[in-house]
Amino acid sequence: VLEAARRRFAGHGYEAATIRAIAADAGVDPALVHHFYGSKEQLFVAAMHLRAVPSQLIARMVRDGPDRLGERIARSVLELWDAPQGQESGVVALLRSAMTNDAATRMLKEFVTSTVLGLIVDVLEVPDAAYRASLVASQLVGLGVVKYVVRIEPLASTPLEDLVVAIGPTLQRYLTEDVRVGAATAGD
Amino acid sequence: VLEAARRRFAGHGYEAATIRAIAADAGVDPALVHHFYGSKEQLFVAAMHLRAVPSQLIARMVRDGPDRLGERIARSVLELWDAPQGQESGVVALLRSAMTNDAATRMLKEFVTSTVLGLIVDVLEVPDAAYRASLVASQLVGLGVVKYVVRIEPLASTPLEDLVVAIGPTLQRYLTEDVRVGAATAGD
Repeated sequence: VLEAARRRFAGHGYEAATIRAIAADAGVDPALVHHFYGSKEQLFVAAMHLRAVPSQLIARMVRDGPDRLGERIARSVLELWDAPQGQESGVVALLRSAMTNDAATRMLKEFVTSTVLGLIVDVLEVPDAAYRASLVASQLVGLGVVKYVVRIEPLASTPLEDLVVAIGPTLQRYLTEDVRVGAATAGD
Repeated sequence: VLEAARRRFAGHGYEAATIRAIAADAGVDPALVHHFYGSKEQLFVAAMHLRAVPSQLIARMVRDGPDRLGERIARSVLELWDAPQGQESGVVALLRSAMTNDAATRMLKEFVTSTVLGLIVDVLEVPDAAYRASLVASQLVGLGVVKYVVRIEPLASTPLEDLVVAIGPTLQRYLTEDVRVGAATAGD
């Protein structure tokens, strides 16, 4: 089922891949897939070897309100990405494949847009939430690429707490302060 | 010569590829390559279809001092990356290939470290300059990936001036303010 899911997500994109079609590819009953994985998001997480379900992670992060939210996001994401010794994190593989071929690019784009950004937009009550979320995505994706894929020093070996001090306020600013020419702040 | 340069940079990395070896691969005199391209950096820029020589760009950006430097970097890089209509920017191709195979990853890493980061470190008189420069690289690489490769909306179609307002202060903070646990600011 996971192999069928990987093939269908990569070949058809996140939106068009249905649990029904993946079950048919694997020759099993769709009810079985629903029973084991629950949702399409959870099936995607399992198929891509991700170590957390984004919607649960985001719900946990925003639960405590907007105060120091950027810092909490930075810490959670870095903890998640610091893969167990000698193992390549699923995120690295996902980023690599998303850069390599157009179908995987579309898959990542649809997954990030519909699941991750969609959730942040729903939860944050700020103007321009989608733009703010995509700025957050740009810093986190860049951190992932530079630290884990290309491994540029000294960033690659910087302690997690230093990176939280550096990146946290950036994310906080993107989520709550002025990020357009002449735009009103979130508090206005 | 450019084809030989591309093959040697990708196969041997930026550091190990010499003008002498590239000239030998192309069956021409090294003096000819020096005459036409000047330096290894300029040969790399031509071979990878980049639209500016990083060392010249950085020299121009830092000429006017640290005030609003982040904003100037953001604007210059975005103007550079906004490729002419219908043409894929060399940066997109470079990012793609650097994610795909290990030799290209090493090539990009060595080029960024020795040329771009090295220059910023030389020019900026702040403590922890290499770490600061790699943080700047993480935001710029992420912007490149999210805006030009994966094309996540609304970031992909956000006007350049809005992105300068969003990204500029981030880069400025990375270059001049606290970016470590308990670290002294650049002014101390």
